[in-house]
Amino acid sequence: MKINIPEVHVPRVVIVGCGFGGLELAKHLAKAPVQVVLIDKNNYHTFQPLLYQVSTSGLEADSIVYPIRKIFKGQKNFHYRWGEVLKINAEQKYLETNIGNCNYDYLVIATGTTTNFFGIEGLEEKSMPMKTVVEALNLRSLILQNFEKALLVTDTKERDALMNFVVVGGGPTGVELTGALCELKRHVLPNDYPELDFRKMRVILVESGDRLLSMMNEANRTKAVEYLKELGAEVWLNIKVIKYDGHEITTASGKPIHAANLIWAAGVKGVMIDGFSADVITPAKRLVVDEINRVKGFENIFAIGDIAYMVTDKYPKGHPQVAPVAIQQGNLLAKNIVNLIQVKVTKPFVYFDKGSMATVGRNKALVEIGKFHFGGFFGWVTWLLVHLMSIVGFRNRVITLFNWIWNYVSYDRNIRLIIRPFHRPEEDKPAA
Amino acid sequence: MKINIPEVHVPRVVIVGCGFGGLELAKHLAKAPVQVVLIDKNNYHTFQPLLYQVSTSGLEADSIVYPIRKIFKGQKNFHYRWGEVLKINAEQKYLETNIGNCNYDYLVIATGTTTNFFGIEGLEEKSMPMKTVVEALNLRSLILQNFEKALLVTDTKERDALMNFVVVGGGPTGVELTGALCELKRHVLPNDYPELDFRKMRVILVESGDRLLSMMNEANRTKAVEYLKELGAEVWLNIKVIKYDGHEITTASGKPIHAANLIWAAGVKGVMIDGFSADVITPAKRLVVDEINRVKGFENIFAIGDIAYMVTDKYPKGHPQVAPVAIQQGNLLAKNIVNLIQVKVTKPFVYFDKGSMATVGRNKALVEIGKFHFGGFFGWVTWLLVHLMSIVGFRNRVITLFNWIWNYVSYDRNIRLIIRPFHRPEEDKPAA
Repeated sequence: MKINIPEVHVPRVVIVGCGFGGLELAKHLAKAPVQVVLIDKNNYHTFQPLLYQVSTSGLEADSIVYPIRKIFKGQKNFHYRWGEVLKINAEQKYLETNIGNCNYDYLVIATGTTTNFFGIEGLEEKSMPMKTVVEALNLRSLILQNFEKALLVTDTKERDALMNFVVVGGGPTGVELTGALCELKRHVLPNDYPELDFRKMRVILVESGDRLLSMMNEANRTKAVEYLKELGAEVWLNIKVIKYDGHEITTASGKPIHAANLIWAAGVKGVMIDGFSADVITPAKRLVVDEINRVKGFENIFAIGDIAYMVTDKYPKGHPQVAPVAIQQGNLLAKNIVNLIQVKVTKPFVYFDKGSMATVGRNKALVEIGKFHFGGFFGWVTWLLVHLMSIVGFRNRVITLFNWIWNYVSYDRNIRLIIRPFHRPEEDKPAA
Repeated sequence: MKINIPEVHVPRVVIVGCGFGGLELAKHLAKAPVQVVLIDKNNYHTFQPLLYQVSTSGLEADSIVYPIRKIFKGQKNFHYRWGEVLKINAEQKYLETNIGNCNYDYLVIATGTTTNFFGIEGLEEKSMPMKTVVEALNLRSLILQNFEKALLVTDTKERDALMNFVVVGGGPTGVELTGALCELKRHVLPNDYPELDFRKMRVILVESGDRLLSMMNEANRTKAVEYLKELGAEVWLNIKVIKYDGHEITTASGKPIHAANLIWAAGVKGVMIDGFSADVITPAKRLVVDEINRVKGFENIFAIGDIAYMVTDKYPKGHPQVAPVAIQQGNLLAKNIVNLIQVKVTKPFVYFDKGSMATVGRNKALVEIGKFHFGGFFGWVTWLLVHLMSIVGFRNRVITLFNWIWNYVSYDRNIRLIIRPFHRPEEDKPAA
């Protein structure tokens, strides 16, 4: 059965995924002589960099996600379908999805990445990933549920475990989430739970390598550790997690930690679609593409953003999996698809690296732009402005800004709501 | 096993439920010589009158719910526990809950009401209730899911059913939801789904009685019907729903309607707790109470709000199940519990009826205050202000006000997000 999409007499470009790359590509095809079909299993675009603020009760979901149909309101050649792609049939040029088959002339894989647990024992079942809005909301619920439980238990070891937070992964996500958890500990939770002793609450950032924010220079990396320690976090470097049972975290150095909260932000892998041969898929499940993001060995199949693996002299290990790469690739591919249709020469991708930034807490952020690097309040304001302006939609910006000002002034986080209690599949759902 | 709550040497008042009544009671006991224990299965208070705006993508959940612990921040004698009460053991004066047992000196049942399907065939399984935030979010998802599906189906009868909305119940909830659905049809959905013919979308309000808003006078009741028709709704009076299979609604008058969306707002019943004998429970599962809200036959068990059934000369059929009654009863019971403790005379409850109001759409509302009644723009503004000021928390008021202004000016509803797709239990969860 075919998906019901108007048949027109221009080439059909099917884009799978409405992340930063897919969104940019579809927008820039607005005036191109093509029909754009965007398929995403979510009817909204997610601003992933702020997911950690949803997890920590600082922002509600609607401020960082935006309805796809609203983004493309009025774009005549655009068609969105709410569905999930299952398989690619490259010979006959069509996709199999859960809502039917969809033929294409040009196919762009922009499915991004998902959490990579590296097959470590117990992680997938017991740890919390934070790559989607639903995962962030589940984490928000679990954090609050565990404090409600901590009030009830009398066994101190169990109570400590419920109040211990271990974040694994020293990248921006891990650092930012760790900072946010420290601020919950300092300013918010003690008011909510006066019966609990928050000197007992531990926030530990665990990194298997020897550094945090490895994309930054040494000065900023050192400052990141300082900032986290000032906020009360423990930073454990060169420590590998090898097992988790939901209560105890086993590490390679033999140092076990008791924690009911393990947030895994230590790796990603591409969201692969069936139909590609092994030789175009990297170990991290990325698709090998050429300099115009064309998947190796295919005429009309492309991959952009985190899932694309493009090797250049400057990036012998592939490009970094960050939003700017996805946006720039989406932008360029729009032009190149038109070039291909009009049999003109295509333009190879060259990544313009604007730099990187991470925030740790109020007045504490790290910014790196080319040779310049700075932090502190100025860095923090820079981080706020850049992120605020990157959020899709004026309304969302206003709501986010208001929440940020409110949280800053009140030292509070208002959205500590257990709207859908989180239960691991194997658990019996309690009445509450 | 007992719930872990500090034992103190003052009487313990246990309140079950943090709706309008329980919230008001707990607040007014702040300075009373008692320990207040509040148990609710949600860690937040819900402003139910605006649930319909969450269902129709106008407001996000966090603007109408508020964390219980934040409300009572700093109230020394207050203890909240996240749990669900299962059974009352009146002889030994303790509650059985899913988190342990809890003894009490005074017990107040403020559990409110839930949807009453009256055992009508298929309703509980196939229709959508809207009494909780989760139910409102599920409805929001279902509405959007069905339009996504409507795009895919080619069978016109099936497509029409997906685009038909039947709201049953002519009270404020039914009227307000019907109006909001009409505004989605007029201003929002056609932009999202240019491929669909919205002349086909029907919004039908079905009421088994001969009138809408029966608590209002005839002028306002007539105006309500006019307003709804102006907005494009069909109003069916004197029509009883007797069966629903998820596609077709069977009515007593034999007139069937094809609709995949049936929202049931036609009745409530008390959220009863085991342990009461039949003679204190009314057919609508309300608890018979005396003039100080004491449950008939009990010394120290009370019921307030929607679940309390108090008969007076002025209200021979019990008091209306509205927020003001709950708030006034909670307020008075706080004083009376202190009176009982101090062996002083108690004060009987007298309901001060401030009037009633309902909004149908932009610039269209109906207000009734004593002998005065008015509608139109002035009524609408009155409705907005009264509701805005009733929302708990300044932040929530600002966010709600901003969203209202935004929605009013832009004719838009921004939160059309399928964050958690809704699936009926018996359905297989599709991949998307």
